[in-house]
Amino acid sequence: MQRAAALVRLGCCPRTPGPWGRSQSSAAAEASAVLKVRPERSRRERILTLESMNPQVKAVEYAVRGPIVLKAGEIELELQRGIKKPFTEVIRANIGDAQAMGQQPITFLRQVMALCTYPNLLDSPSFPEDAKKRARRILQACGGNSLGSYSASQGVNCIREDVAAYITRRDGGVPADPDNIYLTTGASDGISTILKILVSGGGKSRTGVMIPIPQYPLYSAVISELDAIQVNYYLDEENCWALNVNELRRAVQEAKDHCDPKVLCIINPGNPTGQVQSRKCIEDVIHFAWEEKLFLLADEVYQDNVYSPDCKFHSFKKVLYEMGPEYSSNVELASFHSTSKGYMGECGYRGGYMEVINLHPEIKGQLVKLLSVRLCPPVSGQAAMDIVVNPPVPGEESFELFHREKESVLGNLAKKAKLTEDLFNQVPGIHCNPLQGAMYAFPRIFIPSKAVEAAQAHKMAPDMFYCMKLLEETGICVVPGSGFGQREGTYHFRMTILPPVEKLKTVLQKVKDFHIKFLEKYA
Amino acid sequence: MQRAAALVRLGCCPRTPGPWGRSQSSAAAEASAVLKVRPERSRRERILTLESMNPQVKAVEYAVRGPIVLKAGEIELELQRGIKKPFTEVIRANIGDAQAMGQQPITFLRQVMALCTYPNLLDSPSFPEDAKKRARRILQACGGNSLGSYSASQGVNCIREDVAAYITRRDGGVPADPDNIYLTTGASDGISTILKILVSGGGKSRTGVMIPIPQYPLYSAVISELDAIQVNYYLDEENCWALNVNELRRAVQEAKDHCDPKVLCIINPGNPTGQVQSRKCIEDVIHFAWEEKLFLLADEVYQDNVYSPDCKFHSFKKVLYEMGPEYSSNVELASFHSTSKGYMGECGYRGGYMEVINLHPEIKGQLVKLLSVRLCPPVSGQAAMDIVVNPPVPGEESFELFHREKESVLGNLAKKAKLTEDLFNQVPGIHCNPLQGAMYAFPRIFIPSKAVEAAQAHKMAPDMFYCMKLLEETGICVVPGSGFGQREGTYHFRMTILPPVEKLKTVLQKVKDFHIKFLEKYA
Repeated sequence: MQRAAALVRLGCCPRTPGPWGRSQSSAAAEASAVLKVRPERSRRERILTLESMNPQVKAVEYAVRGPIVLKAGEIELELQRGIKKPFTEVIRANIGDAQAMGQQPITFLRQVMALCTYPNLLDSPSFPEDAKKRARRILQACGGNSLGSYSASQGVNCIREDVAAYITRRDGGVPADPDNIYLTTGASDGISTILKILVSGGGKSRTGVMIPIPQYPLYSAVISELDAIQVNYYLDEENCWALNVNELRRAVQEAKDHCDPKVLCIINPGNPTGQVQSRKCIEDVIHFAWEEKLFLLADEVYQDNVYSPDCKFHSFKKVLYEMGPEYSSNVELASFHSTSKGYMGECGYRGGYMEVINLHPEIKGQLVKLLSVRLCPPVSGQAAMDIVVNPPVPGEESFELFHREKESVLGNLAKKAKLTEDLFNQVPGIHCNPLQGAMYAFPRIFIPSKAVEAAQAHKMAPDMFYCMKLLEETGICVVPGSGFGQREGTYHFRMTILPPVEKLKTVLQKVKDFHIKFLEKYA
Repeated sequence: MQRAAALVRLGCCPRTPGPWGRSQSSAAAEASAVLKVRPERSRRERILTLESMNPQVKAVEYAVRGPIVLKAGEIELELQRGIKKPFTEVIRANIGDAQAMGQQPITFLRQVMALCTYPNLLDSPSFPEDAKKRARRILQACGGNSLGSYSASQGVNCIREDVAAYITRRDGGVPADPDNIYLTTGASDGISTILKILVSGGGKSRTGVMIPIPQYPLYSAVISELDAIQVNYYLDEENCWALNVNELRRAVQEAKDHCDPKVLCIINPGNPTGQVQSRKCIEDVIHFAWEEKLFLLADEVYQDNVYSPDCKFHSFKKVLYEMGPEYSSNVELASFHSTSKGYMGECGYRGGYMEVINLHPEIKGQLVKLLSVRLCPPVSGQAAMDIVVNPPVPGEESFELFHREKESVLGNLAKKAKLTEDLFNQVPGIHCNPLQGAMYAFPRIFIPSKAVEAAQAHKMAPDMFYCMKLLEETGICVVPGSGFGQREGTYHFRMTILPPVEKLKTVLQKVKDFHIKFLEKYA
């Protein structure tokens, strides 16, 4: 209180310190208490208010870091202050952040990064030669041989070459041109940049962007920011969240009444839904995009995260080429990858790339211009991306360790995917489709009508109410399905499978107990 | 040609490989040559074209990496191919990228970064204890103790605390609240995020954003992307590029006829103009913003780059507080800093922060939500920002080396600022204001009317024509004044003072010789 009063004397709006966004309500309370004692002189109306702000930004929603996560932060603070709860820690199963859940970085990746960061280490005998070779190659391609220089806006040349070589290998020889590769600040940056270029028109000619429901809410957020029209197509929950082209057709036909559908976004493997698309499905989607003249966005950041033995990742690029020149020379496709997921989980470096094919040459110039305004993606993230696409190969000194680490992460994820599916499906009132890929379970939950009423009384979506209760009673933080979209009357939540196996088992048991109690309470 | 033909057989649009954007014309030529031989089947119209794309993105211009820089790239390729030129290398004086010009990173900063990247090094005796202490502190605040986890959207807590402490020290005790600090992906990201939130309205109510002319073209680019209204105020070239409040008043009055001026952007020290604002001037600007109800954006990324002994950097925040509570509790101010400039020049890490004061609490929530859509700024860039605001202090092991390195960089820049000003002013037809701060000269050049006609014949702005000739004849790459804005009928270019002293002397001598020849040729 003393501090707040001092701030008012200085004319400063008092706020309690502490982690972001968590302390707002307490800060506001404290501020108004102070103001009663010493009314602030001539507080004028703010220029920037909810009424005057950009309405498109106001409309943005991003559930993965929304109110439930703010609440989780508050609870953590309360635990730190010694306030008793029925649990001792908050488990943040809301976001796909592997290293925050204890996953160790891939040694080779960090060795190369350290060498690039502090090149004196290139003389150290404690670093393997193959790591030094990678680091020297990256540094030679950087201005002043330093990660501290801006790169070209499209990214460091040799890293784009490595990405192209990776794609070619991945796609069994289908060529990739480094000139079509753009390094990005995580995949989110690439997706929003491409959407930004694509959106135009007014009224009924406004660009429509087709997205799956459930979706990853980056899409709806960017669509809102850009004032584009969101066109929902529903994934088929009864059929393992498969994408059905008839549903695409329905969606595009209905959309044509009120907008100009121009973009089709696909997430494969699915987030939050975890399905892996069959080759046939991808072929159908491409044909549909070709027919309907849609620009394809393929979000393939989980391409290394396929667990089900019956599934295989097929890239849109590869299938497009295999369908012949009618498609491969015509369909405009941007596909996205990232350092954040897969087996490396390097979210913090914000590395990513996009490959854009069949882009009109004039648009390529426009895209590079747009990228150049933000100068370049973080060069350290670009270096991380390089190691992801150019890891040690058999015969290299670091291969064995790298391979062991990679297989350990992916093996564990596969185990946890199965464990999660099996355990959820043992709970009455929970149904969980197979987790074929990605990093999440998105189980459907039955919410009794009394709970729906209670939620309405609290002005909450029923699944938000459910997730809040889960958080308050167990410390487990998951994201309500309403943040991703779902068919009306159905309820879900998204939970990551990233906690270590033993902890995940506890989490699942706690969710089970909570759910049974919840059903009883609102029966 | 063989490769292009093979690609056409595969149905791929052929492009020549090579660095980004440089090979477009040759690629197009090659493509059309191939197509004559083997016409591609059923090439359909593209969905994304110049006509269908986002018109606001089309309108964006960004001269610092514009056509002149593409041309520089082409010339570099020609030199590599052995094509003879009147010079042997291209000198890229177009962009403030110190390390690309040979400046060495600050050792301490890179040591901490390496330790954070590869924590095994914390056991190495080759790293100083103060660097290890910093690294441990940063890692403890990261999820999973790793730079590879996402941070909070607003940035790592302890780094925001360090930024707040730095601001308080810098501003002689004026308090800074970590809760008002937002870490960003370079300053550009912060500036565009704040502008994005601010822009609203339609027709005559559309938000007007006041920017200096000459300006750093990030501003005009973002204003264009957001479809806001650019409101120019002219800096006073006759008076060392000073900002005159009467000119602000003129600009805002005229703007009110066609938009709603809501934002005032200031760049201090100036980019491209290099002036350092007096305390009196800042006070006048703040009073004007208060009077006119303008949200202030203070771009202070060159706060460490003040060379003139008569000038001193004053932060807007500090002056605001010194003006009393009527201002300090009312004026909404966002100020920006970056790892890219100063003495560290760490552009590639894309680190930065903004401090936003007097923000409406509801808007704070909106801002954090908007930031959360992009998850977080690169954590490595956040760590770099931490070292910038929390460097070694007297008594610490690394202080002496750090201090020597810092003073060497800043001393050299001061020397080069003076050298550049003096040399330019010896050339007839060039006038250069004192380089009080930042990293650029922005000399005014006389362009004879015959040269203006020649430029018009080439459909080029006269100063673009001049800079192209300079590039083609000397290899020196500078940016025409038209890319930053200038009073009609005046011509300038922006040149960095970053090349090493001896090289800079050569560059200046070459510009001088070129200019004299140019004047003779078009006399």
